[in-house]
Amino acid sequence: MKDLPGMPGTPGGLGLRLVQFVFAAVALAVMASTNDFPSVTSFCFLVAAAILQCLWSFSLAIVDIYALLVKRCLRNRRAVCLFAIGDGITAALTFSAACASSGITVLIDNDLDLCSENHCASFESATAMAFLSWFALSPSFLLNFWSMASG
Amino acid sequence: MKDLPGMPGTPGGLGLRLVQFVFAAVALAVMASTNDFPSVTSFCFLVAAAILQCLWSFSLAIVDIYALLVKRCLRNRRAVCLFAIGDGITAALTFSAACASSGITVLIDNDLDLCSENHCASFESATAMAFLSWFALSPSFLLNFWSMASG
Repeated sequence: MKDLPGMPGTPGGLGLRLVQFVFAAVALAVMASTNDFPSVTSFCFLVAAAILQCLWSFSLAIVDIYALLVKRCLRNRRAVCLFAIGDGITAALTFSAACASSGITVLIDNDLDLCSENHCASFESATAMAFLSWFALSPSFLLNFWSMASG
Repeated sequence: MKDLPGMPGTPGGLGLRLVQFVFAAVALAVMASTNDFPSVTSFCFLVAAAILQCLWSFSLAIVDIYALLVKRCLRNRRAVCLFAIGDGITAALTFSAACASSGITVLIDNDLDLCSENHCASFESATAMAFLSWFALSPSFLLNFWSMASG
């Protein structure tokens, strides 16, 4: 197994986890700051997915910090398998929630022109943050899946 | 490289491609049969993604049939890399279109109760077919990515 930057237990991997955590937390905060998000199912789903993403990225960031501090290698087969499955599930959830929310925001903004009555800016920025969190998650997933397959 | 069922050039792989093609074609036909889908951006995106999915799966099915007929092995590195990248792009597009459309259908059906004025049943079945097409595509993508990593 080669030691690629971005894998768990490397500084790059820790950076990716922190970026994921920050973007998911911002998406959660922005969406939860609007008072009418519970009226749309997709926005509730986005909040749920962002919470799960925050918890997952934060736990993995702590594992990475521990591995960096005690200089342990996290690249054993069982850990990589667990990380790849967890990353796959959270990536699918975050991406689907972001896509569903973007469908709604595009409907509100472009098709129906209802932006003056809604918190369009908040909805759109929360969706964008969820997409950015997914962009930071996908290299983690691909690297873990790659090292699971090649190991 | 091990010969897993479902990889390109095997009967399982051909079956997966045909299932993807049929579900994407049904999604396209059902969505295009409604007269008001162009008023929602997400539904237009679903139509575009279903067309791309149809073309991709159909071409790969023809390649699989050719490989089965002349008994050629498709598992060389460059072909598998090409298949994995194409599968990844079409899978991401189909999944995002299906998620965006499902966000809209859930909004229309559950949150706003506008189903009597819309073609809800058509929208929902087209979305479900797009999801089924993605379910058939994801094993193809994972197997190709796996054999790209392990080869």
